[in-house]
Amino acid sequence: QLESRVSPPLKRGMTAAAFKSMGISDDTKERLNRLAMGVAIISADNFRKRWSRLSSPADFHVGRLVMTALSSPQITVEDYEQAAKTLMKALFIREKYSRLAYHRFPRTVAQFLRIYVSHTCLPTDVCPCPREGEDPYSIENIPDNLSYELQTKDGIVYVYENAEALSQNRPRSLPYPDLETFAIDLSHVLAMIVDGPTKTYCHRRLNFLGSKFYLHEMLNEMAELKELKGVPHRDFYNVRKVDTHIHAAACMSQKHLLNFIQTTYKTEADRVVLEKGGRKLTLREVFEHLNMDPYDLTVDSLDVHAGRQTFHRFDKFNSKYNPVGASELREIYLKTDNLIDGEYFARIIKEVSHDLEESKYQHAEPRLSIYGRSADEWDSLSKWFIQHKVHSTNMQWIIQVPRIYDIFKSKKLITNFAKMLENIFLPLFEATVNPQKHKELHVFLKYVTGFDSVDDESKHSDHMFSYKSPKPEQWTADENPPYSYYLFHMYANIMVLNNLRKERGLSTFQFRPHCGEAGSITHLVSAFLTADNISHGLNLKKSPVLQYLYYLAQVPIAMSPLSNNSLFLEYSKNPLREFLHKGLCVSLSTDDPMQFHYTKEALMEEYAIAAQLWKLSTCDVCEIARNSVLQSGLSHQEKKHFIGANYLKDGPEGNDIRRTNVAQIRMAYRHETLCNELSFLVDAVKTEAAIGTQPE
Amino acid sequence: QLESRVSPPLKRGMTAAAFKSMGISDDTKERLNRLAMGVAIISADNFRKRWSRLSSPADFHVGRLVMTALSSPQITVEDYEQAAKTLMKALFIREKYSRLAYHRFPRTVAQFLRIYVSHTCLPTDVCPCPREGEDPYSIENIPDNLSYELQTKDGIVYVYENAEALSQNRPRSLPYPDLETFAIDLSHVLAMIVDGPTKTYCHRRLNFLGSKFYLHEMLNEMAELKELKGVPHRDFYNVRKVDTHIHAAACMSQKHLLNFIQTTYKTEADRVVLEKGGRKLTLREVFEHLNMDPYDLTVDSLDVHAGRQTFHRFDKFNSKYNPVGASELREIYLKTDNLIDGEYFARIIKEVSHDLEESKYQHAEPRLSIYGRSADEWDSLSKWFIQHKVHSTNMQWIIQVPRIYDIFKSKKLITNFAKMLENIFLPLFEATVNPQKHKELHVFLKYVTGFDSVDDESKHSDHMFSYKSPKPEQWTADENPPYSYYLFHMYANIMVLNNLRKERGLSTFQFRPHCGEAGSITHLVSAFLTADNISHGLNLKKSPVLQYLYYLAQVPIAMSPLSNNSLFLEYSKNPLREFLHKGLCVSLSTDDPMQFHYTKEALMEEYAIAAQLWKLSTCDVCEIARNSVLQSGLSHQEKKHFIGANYLKDGPEGNDIRRTNVAQIRMAYRHETLCNELSFLVDAVKTEAAIGTQPE
Repeated sequence: QLESRVSPPLKRGMTAAAFKSMGISDDTKERLNRLAMGVAIISADNFRKRWSRLSSPADFHVGRLVMTALSSPQITVEDYEQAAKTLMKALFIREKYSRLAYHRFPRTVAQFLRIYVSHTCLPTDVCPCPREGEDPYSIENIPDNLSYELQTKDGIVYVYENAEALSQNRPRSLPYPDLETFAIDLSHVLAMIVDGPTKTYCHRRLNFLGSKFYLHEMLNEMAELKELKGVPHRDFYNVRKVDTHIHAAACMSQKHLLNFIQTTYKTEADRVVLEKGGRKLTLREVFEHLNMDPYDLTVDSLDVHAGRQTFHRFDKFNSKYNPVGASELREIYLKTDNLIDGEYFARIIKEVSHDLEESKYQHAEPRLSIYGRSADEWDSLSKWFIQHKVHSTNMQWIIQVPRIYDIFKSKKLITNFAKMLENIFLPLFEATVNPQKHKELHVFLKYVTGFDSVDDESKHSDHMFSYKSPKPEQWTADENPPYSYYLFHMYANIMVLNNLRKERGLSTFQFRPHCGEAGSITHLVSAFLTADNISHGLNLKKSPVLQYLYYLAQVPIAMSPLSNNSLFLEYSKNPLREFLHKGLCVSLSTDDPMQFHYTKEALMEEYAIAAQLWKLSTCDVCEIARNSVLQSGLSHQEKKHFIGANYLKDGPEGNDIRRTNVAQIRMAYRHETLCNELSFLVDAVKTEAAIGTQPE
Repeated sequence: QLESRVSPPLKRGMTAAAFKSMGISDDTKERLNRLAMGVAIISADNFRKRWSRLSSPADFHVGRLVMTALSSPQITVEDYEQAAKTLMKALFIREKYSRLAYHRFPRTVAQFLRIYVSHTCLPTDVCPCPREGEDPYSIENIPDNLSYELQTKDGIVYVYENAEALSQNRPRSLPYPDLETFAIDLSHVLAMIVDGPTKTYCHRRLNFLGSKFYLHEMLNEMAELKELKGVPHRDFYNVRKVDTHIHAAACMSQKHLLNFIQTTYKTEADRVVLEKGGRKLTLREVFEHLNMDPYDLTVDSLDVHAGRQTFHRFDKFNSKYNPVGASELREIYLKTDNLIDGEYFARIIKEVSHDLEESKYQHAEPRLSIYGRSADEWDSLSKWFIQHKVHSTNMQWIIQVPRIYDIFKSKKLITNFAKMLENIFLPLFEATVNPQKHKELHVFLKYVTGFDSVDDESKHSDHMFSYKSPKPEQWTADENPPYSYYLFHMYANIMVLNNLRKERGLSTFQFRPHCGEAGSITHLVSAFLTADNISHGLNLKKSPVLQYLYYLAQVPIAMSPLSNNSLFLEYSKNPLREFLHKGLCVSLSTDDPMQFHYTKEALMEEYAIAAQLWKLSTCDVCEIARNSVLQSGLSHQEKKHFIGANYLKDGPEGNDIRRTNVAQIRMAYRHETLCNELSFLVDAVKTEAAIGTQPE
């Protein structure tokens, strides 16, 4: 009867089964078991004394790792149960928001949660790539238009069956989110991250995870390496790596941009490229006006690289996007909607994607901007994409929305925040409902896999987001809405849009905001609810509860330590290594090669420095690379090809070592460790149930 | 009268003159002056009180910076004078050894020393490259043979006019060194580095140098950057960089070696490549024997990369030179004198040099081994070099001699240490005296620019080197001679050889040993006397006196922080940044790309990581690159081309900013700072002289 309380993956039998498909030696298996059991043996007695309710010897199996949380006066059984309940609740909340938006939620976690709630939560298949030989820009076979009507209300697009339903205000039955519920859920999690017992519990669990990995490394490092040596034809150089966070306008190296500018000047100096003050200027005139000869340009005078001057100065960093400090050159070379229809920008991006295709194993997910300044941005962007044939098999596109309502408002480009949201999202709904009317956008959207929310997080907002916050139509103030307000409204629209698109059999979008790079840790709470995965996550350092939640829910984090090193946090203080060791799902990304990197291969530079400085093993870097594929917006088919047919399964079963070069011992370790952590939460709640209190 | 005591570069007038040719603004000039004077103004009064002998107000000019050494109870005027005398003596000793061997000694330092001794010390012109269009392997125009006779005595080769002179034991009048003198000089410097007052003085001067640079940076960083932005067409990417320390057998990346092995197997599997146990084996048989398919080979199974396992394990590191742990593959791919006449090794090196030539701005100084096991090694090596046409304009060659007498002795390959020295050096003397008899070696030596001494410095030697040490003929013990013993005998032979070659108008060699990577700091004392420049120098961290002496004498140091990070010292603890800031002449080098680097461009990876981690400015990295050219064995003509026609002059005059991209402000700062430090020493000795005591 006790056995049934023990969660499946903790059972001896399960462990053996898990090993079965791995093809690893008995010796290794034994060592791994010894490691897992070691912790229990040391202090089982001690544990039994403390947790007196458990009296049967078999119970120590359940409690074997819990004791690390209880073996100090800092935490009582009651506190542990309280913390477990709280954490479970947070996971349920994230599960709900993930499900609503067709975001991913890890199977293993869902399985544990399903112990007393049952709903299925299957990962969604995002963006199938164009099939072999298919024209990626083809406007054949576009679905028919529907007679649906659309209307924006409270900053969210509502979908109506037809004009009549609209007039009767009967929207289609899609899940529409509501600000109040979100505000309440948010405040729940906010309260939880400052709750004392929960903080202690999470802090101790995280320390335990760190120490446990250290033990794993000591015991299994050579065995992992041996496994990898046995893998034919696969090593760190030919496992797939996705640059999960990179801005298109800075995706080339500074040297590349310099050469590109010099080349255009050499070959097209007399081309009209810019309109300024009503006058059309040739490239030659632009440079004359700037009083410089492109031949003399150097990376020093180009001045796009971050340096000591940009540390803690996001404003100075932003101005580095202007080559030679001249916004004219940014306009000509790094914009999609300029006088030359973004031709130069397309060309330089295609040079970058050509290099990726050559490398074969490197992919990137560059961010293109939609500002919400006007409603025609999408048409212009998709036209640019198709006209210049920007698609590449090694690039998936993400749309970044800068949080700069206040700038548009001050320039009187928009009247309220709802208008900005409408400019961003309504065109997407229109293209989804009536794709025949928006063929180019429809095609472009096939290659867009997600949305990002970007800007300086350290900027302070005076407004405190709550259920009393004004609706977007009422947000007419000059000041910028706070981070959470942005996130909720982007999430809400993406969620409705994804549901609508799923109905139509179209691709869905992930929400992948910048989060936790700087500013308040509440940002990380908002993203815990709304984001499929995030970029940066540095501030998880500051909150043990959030860090533990991101671990439990395996929220992917695209980290960019070289970017951080130039902007917010010195390399030696970057938590990536610690996060990786504890088992958070981290990947490596470049952010802005133009500003931060020195070599031709920015992503390899990022990996090389991390490997050198943190002495990462081959297994470590390959685990990061595998995480990057998982995190990415690559299609199901591609992921199967890159990391193995069963990649959706958790643990060693889901790992094809011949493709990922990640040791099965490592996969087993990660899986069992996560199962252990989850089972403590479930067991605590169950124990409580068993002695009479019902879980809420 | 006092003015005459002030050393020239400290005079106001000199400073102005130094600025004159720099073309920098009055504003900058003023700022630089303010910086230099600032220190004096703060505590001139304080200084005057303490150093009562100086009473005229003009005196404070002399003492303005000295006061930082005297402004604490830790150091007295007497101690300062003692320390200065000691340091001067050490510089005189190095000057003597440098002059004897045609090593370089900085002009500025020589000028200061010449204040009361006078001899000229001009930098030597090493290894002119083959002229444009000239066949690098041509055996035309080789000088005639001479009737000289050669004989080894005490491990050093003696040169005799003819057979008669030999029989009468009348060697030619070349400077022959003598072990006793060397041992005495060495013990002088050894005593000095543990002398209390000298340690205090040097420690304080070094701290001062660090703080002064910090002030310089604060004041002039933007001005330096502005200077660099104004330089047309030159930036960090197209300044010349020399990889000043790299081993030929590890000069390719692990991925490169892997691809090379796979290619040879694909195209030449049936070629006989190895003789083992009397049987000749084809490539296919070798791999069958090793039970592996090269197609399945990965960088993991190749296993040549250093990792956590190699830290403080030089032995494990050394075995990484064996691909797949198989010495057979090292024999086939990384040796010059194997069954295939080193063809594979030559081919892979040529691929590396091809990449360097493509990059245009990168050079390397790879080390090839001469072991001293037998007398025909030189013939075999030069034959290999010429047969496979290994010469490249972007590579200069250095001969490394492993310190492994004990291994040869235990295998009974040699009878005493003198035999090993003879095997190494006698062929060079023969080729110098009778080049017509040794045409290939004569040609090869044109491209050899120096000697290196290599091995694990952390190995302990029981023998204490002194004037009582046995002569090389008497060194018949099984144990290895100590580091200093090796260094002296290599230096001694190189010195005689250089003098002989100079007479004949042939190129000379620099002695550039590995030194201070690990082991005793006395190694750095030996190299201070005998080396033109060194590789590593990490242990200068541990001795303020030696560090200050290396600064004063501007002994170039090729540092390899990534190599250190894998073997001896974590990156964050590497002293490179500190050395650079204080003004030591440091360059960056890779040591072993095969073992340490991840990307295709190892030297760029080395620079990138240093720049990222230490937040080096463009001026910093360009200063390092300029140092690397200065340190290298590139010819006078090439150096003129790469860093400016006047590069031999010290200070801003010697810098061509259009070639080096090093700011003139930086050059002025370095020069004035060095002059200041030197003038204190000279002044102290002079003051002493003035009040009656004669300098010894």
